Amino acid sequence: MEDLYRHAHKLREVNPLVHCLTNQVVMQTTANVLLAAGASPAMLDAPEDAAAFAKNSSAVLVNTGTPHAAKYVASREAIRGAREAGVPWVLDPIGAGAPNAVGDFCSSILADKPDVISGNASEIVALAGMGDTARGVDATIDVDDALDAAISLAARTGGVVAVTGARDLTVSAGRSTWLTSGVPMLQQVIGTGCSLGALCAAYASLDMDPHDAVVTAHAHLGAAAQIAAETAHGPGSFAVAWLDAIAAVTPERMRELTSVEETR
Amino acid sequence: MEDLYRHAHKLREVNPLVHCLTNQVVMQTTANVLLAAGASPAMLDAPEDAAAFAKNSSAVLVNTGTPHAAKYVASREAIRGAREAGVPWVLDPIGAGAPNAVGDFCSSILADKPDVISGNASEIVALAGMGDTARGVDATIDVDDALDAAISLAARTGGVVAVTGARDLTVSAGRSTWLTSGVPMLQQVIGTGCSLGALCAAYASLDMDPHDAVVTAHAHLGAAAQIAAETAHGPGSFAVAWLDAIAAVTPERMRELTSVEETR
Amino acid sequence: MEDLYRHAHKLREVNPLVHCLTNQVVMQTTANVLLAAGASPAMLDAPEDAAAFAKNSSAVLVNTGTPHAAKYVASREAIRGAREAGVPWVLDPIGAGAPNAVGDFCSSILADKPDVISGNASEIVALAGMGDTARGVDATIDVDDALDAAISLAARTGGVVAVTGARDLTVSAGRSTWLTSGVPMLQQVIGTGCSLGALCAAYASLDMDPHDAVVTAHAHLGAAAQIAAETAHGPGSFAVAWLDAIAAVTPERMRELTSVEETR
Repeated sequence: MEDLYRHAHKLREVNPLVHCLTNQVVMQTTANVLLAAGASPAMLDAPEDAAAFAKNSSAVLVNTGTPHAAKYVASREAIRGAREAGVPWVLDPIGAGAPNAVGDFCSSILADKPDVISGNASEIVALAGMGDTARGVDATIDVDDALDAAISLAARTGGVVAVTGARDLTVSAGRSTWLTSGVPMLQQVIGTGCSLGALCAAYASLDMDPHDAVVTAHAHLGAAAQIAAETAHGPGSFAVAWLDAIAAVTPERMRELTSVEETR
Repeated sequence: MEDLYRHAHKLREVNPLVHCLTNQVVMQTTANVLLAAGASPAMLDAPEDAAAFAKNSSAVLVNTGTPHAAKYVASREAIRGAREAGVPWVLDPIGAGAPNAVGDFCSSILADKPDVISGNASEIVALAGMGDTARGVDATIDVDDALDAAISLAARTGGVVAVTGARDLTVSAGRSTWLTSGVPMLQQVIGTGCSLGALCAAYASLDMDPHDAVVTAHAHLGAAAQIAAETAHGPGSFAVAWLDAIAAVTPERMRELTSVEETR
Repeated sequence: MEDLYRHAHKLREVNPLVHCLTNQVVMQTTANVLLAAGASPAMLDAPEDAAAFAKNSSAVLVNTGTPHAAKYVASREAIRGAREAGVPWVLDPIGAGAPNAVGDFCSSILADKPDVISGNASEIVALAGMGDTARGVDATIDVDDALDAAISLAARTGGVVAVTGARDLTVSAGRSTWLTSGVPMLQQVIGTGCSLGALCAAYASLDMDPHDAVVTAHAHLGAAAQIAAETAHGPGSFAVAWLDAIAAVTPERMRELTSVEETR
């Protein structure tokens, strides 16, 4: 277990280009998190350019928040480009399970087998078709309740499924990892969860086990949050200190601050 | 008057879901202000989903900044959903009075009787058809000059009309309240005014007098600004400290830091 | 040379209105930089209103990041309005040289003779048709390698061409200026480069030599970055301190912290 984060330092060396089709609320934070962690963000969701751009990227993130018609087209194009070029792609299924266009999009896009799915418990359960979310935007059930859904989705996609919450769960074929990291204050800053999806994409592009990559992304942001909480006076100063810590945290600190349990 | 803020603590208890159709510049700040204050933000302006989402929200904000054709449709849909479900909705009429699509939209949407209108003096005067704004984005007249316009709009909509400025004015049928709070530095950070509209929506969803709700929203952000100004070195650190203070300020501190005058 | 920044204080006196058609990632930062520096931002990219709004603005910025079909139309309209009214306009050619719609737009819009072009070395070389960029979003070549491209573009447009990098280059007919300012940390915060384009527009609207205006904009943000770096602990606190310093930096401090060399 002590070697889980042995590839964390590679992100800054490789500086992967992460093509993000994400929601308008979190674009700035997502870009800053990627930069702080050592990756390069590229926000581009023009339908006509998305496929070609995805092919030249290191990884693609599709976050379904603030959806609109053109973004659906662009997302499908980016995913097509990613798959054709063997570029890993990550789905952050904001609004999954909603009885509308977003929900339909999330369900249909599963057939394109995302390499990573990253969401909260409500989203993962809804995406697996095992429940629905009343409010659609924040987690209202526990991570434990999403274990079966995550296993089901991992089986369907052949990829890695991550559920964020008080403890973070990462599931892939035959393997479940529980990560204890982070602080509740993360819920009080917009974009922390969405940035995690982007960082999963960055790590998933590295030459390392995809399951380990996803756990490392969670530990990176979670440990940084714990460091930030030591000095923060509220959500404003926390967000600032968190970015500082994302840029500064070492694999050693990640090991000290987080704990991991494999249960399968 | 000392009891005006007696419901301020309820926001965190109730955690209302505020459906925001707002402008792209301020989405992140607006979401962070709502989270810091104890509400949940949901930014969604897809035309096909807006009505259903509004019906399930606690309140709806329509901010007319960065307008485009699809957002107009989505805003009308959200307002329709809100009205059908008895959900309060707030209009922040950025660009009201401009001789273009934004101005036309603002004028026409008054027929849907916003529960709250929140704007600067130029916007309120323009929306009431009593003047026009040359620059369209920032206040160029005094709050006092908007009193008649606010009274007129309140009479037409049956709702609450708030005018932000050096002193904030809140008007409803038979009642005008002047609030002294805030600091000039608020004008140097983008999104502080737009966040106020969103917080008005959050408070308007609570079980309290709508006029009091609007004054409380102003006092909440204004008092937090006064606290932030004590430590800020400029607009950057002010914005950070303001978010911290929004999360920390108590009704007692709001009473200490602000003053209220009823004039009608 | 000591008088180069003699007009820097005018920005706050004149408070120019900068009409920005920019990318969604950097809207908030761009607006905050303009406010901190003493200008007024207006983000509006609705095709139907762009020309009229541009005519009433002090300057127009067209930044081609996060492009989409409606924004192309709006940008062309804004440029048309600006030219008809004699309002200076600035092109920040994100994605120039890419073999797609963005690249085509950037090339075609050169015929409208931007008063200022502001980009990194890769973008300027690509825009001049002297190379191409593999990744499209960040500089991969040195500023020195873009000198010929900048001279060529300045000749074609009759305007000022700025290349940002380790040293910033400003070129216009018969004049090349190298500015040493800024810190590498600027690359770790999203929107610092895009904000520079906006500030070039603000300064270009003042009654001063356009070449000096562009150099002054660079020195303003660069000197502020140097001040911010003195106290920052990472990209989060740097971004905050940078905004503070943009609001506080004086022409005297700009002179102390930066150095200028004319080479042509």
